[in-house]
Amino acid sequence: LQTLTVSFLPAGKKAEVEPGKTIMDAVLETGLPLAHEGLAAPCGGRGLCGNCMVRVISGKTGDVTAAEKLFLSPAQLEEGYRLACQATVYSDLKVEIPLQSMVGTQKLQIEGLKVDVVPETVIKRYSLPVTKTSIENPRSLWQQLSEALQKEYNLERVTVDNKLAGEVEPMAEEGSTNVFVRNSEIINVHVNCKVPLLGLAVDLGTTKIAGFLINLETGDVLATEGIMNPQIAYGEDVMARLSYALDEEENYNRIQKIEIDGLNHLVGSLSAKAGVSASDIAEAVIVGNTAMHHLLLHLPVSQLARAPYVPAVTVPVEVKARSLGLNLSKGAYVYLEPVIAGFVGGDHVAMILSSGIDTAEKVTLGLDIGTNTEIVLCYNGKMLSCSCASGPAFEGAHISQGMRAVNGAIYSVDISDDGLEVHWESIGDLPPIGICGSGILDAVAGLYRAGVLNTSGRMNGDHPLVRRAPGGMPEFVLVPAERAGIDRDIVITQKDISEIQLAKAAIAAGTKILLEVAGLELGSIEEVVVAGAFGTHLKLQSAVTIGMLPGLPFNLFRQVGNAAGTGACMALVSQTERRRSETIARRVNYIELMTQKSFQDVFINSLLFPEI
Amino acid sequence: LQTLTVSFLPAGKKAEVEPGKTIMDAVLETGLPLAHEGLAAPCGGRGLCGNCMVRVISGKTGDVTAAEKLFLSPAQLEEGYRLACQATVYSDLKVEIPLQSMVGTQKLQIEGLKVDVVPETVIKRYSLPVTKTSIENPRSLWQQLSEALQKEYNLERVTVDNKLAGEVEPMAEEGSTNVFVRNSEIINVHVNCKVPLLGLAVDLGTTKIAGFLINLETGDVLATEGIMNPQIAYGEDVMARLSYALDEEENYNRIQKIEIDGLNHLVGSLSAKAGVSASDIAEAVIVGNTAMHHLLLHLPVSQLARAPYVPAVTVPVEVKARSLGLNLSKGAYVYLEPVIAGFVGGDHVAMILSSGIDTAEKVTLGLDIGTNTEIVLCYNGKMLSCSCASGPAFEGAHISQGMRAVNGAIYSVDISDDGLEVHWESIGDLPPIGICGSGILDAVAGLYRAGVLNTSGRMNGDHPLVRRAPGGMPEFVLVPAERAGIDRDIVITQKDISEIQLAKAAIAAGTKILLEVAGLELGSIEEVVVAGAFGTHLKLQSAVTIGMLPGLPFNLFRQVGNAAGTGACMALVSQTERRRSETIARRVNYIELMTQKSFQDVFINSLLFPEI
Repeated sequence: LQTLTVSFLPAGKKAEVEPGKTIMDAVLETGLPLAHEGLAAPCGGRGLCGNCMVRVISGKTGDVTAAEKLFLSPAQLEEGYRLACQATVYSDLKVEIPLQSMVGTQKLQIEGLKVDVVPETVIKRYSLPVTKTSIENPRSLWQQLSEALQKEYNLERVTVDNKLAGEVEPMAEEGSTNVFVRNSEIINVHVNCKVPLLGLAVDLGTTKIAGFLINLETGDVLATEGIMNPQIAYGEDVMARLSYALDEEENYNRIQKIEIDGLNHLVGSLSAKAGVSASDIAEAVIVGNTAMHHLLLHLPVSQLARAPYVPAVTVPVEVKARSLGLNLSKGAYVYLEPVIAGFVGGDHVAMILSSGIDTAEKVTLGLDIGTNTEIVLCYNGKMLSCSCASGPAFEGAHISQGMRAVNGAIYSVDISDDGLEVHWESIGDLPPIGICGSGILDAVAGLYRAGVLNTSGRMNGDHPLVRRAPGGMPEFVLVPAERAGIDRDIVITQKDISEIQLAKAAIAAGTKILLEVAGLELGSIEEVVVAGAFGTHLKLQSAVTIGMLPGLPFNLFRQVGNAAGTGACMALVSQTERRRSETIARRVNYIELMTQKSFQDVFINSLLFPEI
Repeated sequence: LQTLTVSFLPAGKKAEVEPGKTIMDAVLETGLPLAHEGLAAPCGGRGLCGNCMVRVISGKTGDVTAAEKLFLSPAQLEEGYRLACQATVYSDLKVEIPLQSMVGTQKLQIEGLKVDVVPETVIKRYSLPVTKTSIENPRSLWQQLSEALQKEYNLERVTVDNKLAGEVEPMAEEGSTNVFVRNSEIINVHVNCKVPLLGLAVDLGTTKIAGFLINLETGDVLATEGIMNPQIAYGEDVMARLSYALDEEENYNRIQKIEIDGLNHLVGSLSAKAGVSASDIAEAVIVGNTAMHHLLLHLPVSQLARAPYVPAVTVPVEVKARSLGLNLSKGAYVYLEPVIAGFVGGDHVAMILSSGIDTAEKVTLGLDIGTNTEIVLCYNGKMLSCSCASGPAFEGAHISQGMRAVNGAIYSVDISDDGLEVHWESIGDLPPIGICGSGILDAVAGLYRAGVLNTSGRMNGDHPLVRRAPGGMPEFVLVPAERAGIDRDIVITQKDISEIQLAKAAIAAGTKILLEVAGLELGSIEEVVVAGAFGTHLKLQSAVTIGMLPGLPFNLFRQVGNAAGTGACMALVSQTERRRSETIARRVNYIELMTQKSFQDVFINSLLFPEI
């Protein structure tokens, strides 16, 4: 028999098949990883799942089948899209395999850290045929599905989400169903339509909430979005929120509900961005600091608000999204990453996960800098973590002209060696109206290098750009009023310097204590991971100059962006990563700085700027 | 060294130990199954669980320890009760081991069927020490518990019921805790007090609800209670209730709520009877016919109310008790046995389980007789089931002077061979006011044997005790008014006979169709299991005489009482039995009688009484 050649793009592979064979047959010969071999498309070439979509670029193929009409739109058919398992080969063909039809080649890639994670989600999609319920076939949709799952996939103990069962028409119509099974529970079903299997990852911060909408089968990030945490209306920091919630039960309910509302809002805008339906989000992973975690779950928090700041629950929590009031798919679960201590939360676990600190062979220091800075030290397969009360100075708070990193904020400062010339850059290139964390850091480092500050942080009152404020305290004029976007000078005050010293000393002392507990010298650190928005935007040189980060060669540092969000995505997409995060939470040994005898001395010493 | 003799009652075993050894040491020598070796008491002789309670009848022992003061009341200590792991031996001793301290010897025994089931519950009790939360030990109760479970019992992925965590003080106090873990979820915890681990089994019938309160660790049935199903207010039978629920959504909510209220009431009275707290009920198993099952879960029911009567969900359903509104332990789950078809429910599964029909090596027929009679035929490792619309005649309904089996009901009738003498017995030995199922069955059988009825059921109008009713139809005077508790004769009418014929024909036809589908003869049946209240109280001879039950030697019959309730208890107490019930539900092949071509003929033939 004559054979025909099918060439595949973009891989460039070719296969020889007899006329009348399907494109799928040709794919199989080439060994290309088309969807049907993977978990994501289990119908096995029966035209039941619609996953093996390909585009025929040239050549003659058999007629479009009923299955293809079900899964492909007229526009797609027009463009040459076919299902590989349905389309037969009648001449030499050139066929493109779109990325979404490949399994195992798509990796999770989120800005910041680039991490390769093979999708391996807790939810599996099964494509199962169902037969119309009738006298001869008196079996409901659920019965047919559970039987098929048992017989064909050996899922012995299938259960059905009872809420879902209460809302879906139980009488089956003829057709193909997409069934989503989580462990052994059917959490969603779609008859005669193919919907995506979506997941939501959330980094629930005190100030910001970052959301990621992900295709769980391909690992594609479909949309990302950051919103302000609406709980801010009830307090800027964790303690203020806890004390509000503790004031009366009604407050706690209100602050919890507003958080859920915020998350639902986030889900809505992520879905709109990606052009998908929130009701197809079948799983969510939330990482957050311990207070946000507890407030979301309505766990007891009074013990979180006072020393020794004990979390009620540290183990991972899995709850139905609907039980929290989160509007996702009917049967969806929310998985909350485990927390470690009162001020070391699931975001820290997620940061360790995504930056790979837990598997580092080098002695690695990891810092997630924020109002509380979590630090982890990994050495000899051990991990120590602590939390430092670094305060909100790097977010612009408690700084006389500090502000968040928004338009008009000075984010970069360069001061000449004599301290007389100041170069600055502002966000949006606008006339500056204040200064944000990285700008303050640069300014303090520059002033110290220029000798405007001495090692204890005292400002040289004789410097030409230093003047006396009304109260008599010195301040350095960074931007004179005529160049500023406000009608007064932008200055760095002596008090601002003190605030930065307190913040950086907290971080430096935490680092030193961890090294002390581990019995290591500073010089033994082989890698430093710096995470978080501020950590990613800061100039390493400035941070090292003032002693916030250890004085190590810059090539040992890695600035990794929102590592917590990335970790949440990883735990969402991959079961293996989720298990790994649980192991991390158990392995980390929490060090309470307050109980370390040397802490107070180390902290006081760390207030000084390092000798240059 | 001198040794001392410890004699144990009631087993009579003796052990020789050195002075200063504990009673537990002596127990271990004898090989007696004291609690600490079993799953129920995992503290391993460390004085942490309080399970190894014994009574010292004579002899000298060491001082009472702190652990004993924790677990034993002053009254118990006064009576000589000690913990075997704490009490040391200082002379020859006589020691009694109370039954509750023995593991693996207690079996589940429920009136009716006697079934031996070794407790092996889905929930395990762990006794774990906890240390006061402090600066030095900044770990919450939950954190300590999950760590201990991981370290000491290798429970890797422990989770905490989030509702429970929200309501229990998370700061640990020094002491011993009892932790209840279901799979890997902590569902309850008790600090410094030992509560029982209780379970609830419910047979949720259309008319009656039977409840069983069981100690899950010993298998002891602590209390049983039957109440009327309060849904009766909305319809006597399944169809009436379904149609009420379908009328409007509000009705469905109402009828579901009243059911839950009824169950909560049942739980309350069971707990009161047993002198325990409902909040210690950590697991419930509910078996019921498919309609009751669906209404309880608020599943779609419109398809249950019309042919082909398709259940929405057949797989087992597990839900948090609180999500249904059931007031049990905070973290308790309700497990609903799987159902098989619209009229073959979880009660049928439970009946097969407890009567062992699924493992029968003989060809076995099982019948649970009620308004709907479920029949199962087990042969060659296969099981066929069907449901027969036998109607409520055997519950006294549709019978002119029928009544339920309550005080004043004639439950047994004996008619002389000439049909002239009637002996009857009534419940409570009261003047009769009506006749219940077993009485009607006896009466019809007696009338047929006496020739008052011919094979087609026609009443001989010439018989002295037969008279014409006002409408001209014949009726047989069973009890003349002067001996009755009512002011008129108690009679059996021609229409009553017809009702009984319809009922018994439905059951007989079901049996015959199952045999036909299996390709077996009546004579191949080697055992007949008759379940249910009526099935247990009926006279086999009468049932066989009229052809309701197959004409087989009486020694092949086994009347087993509330087999469904027993099955529920088994699935509650034992994981193995629960898995077995799920296998039963999957194995049973449901036969829809209406689709069997021969059914109508077989049914019509079965209306006749068998030749004597």
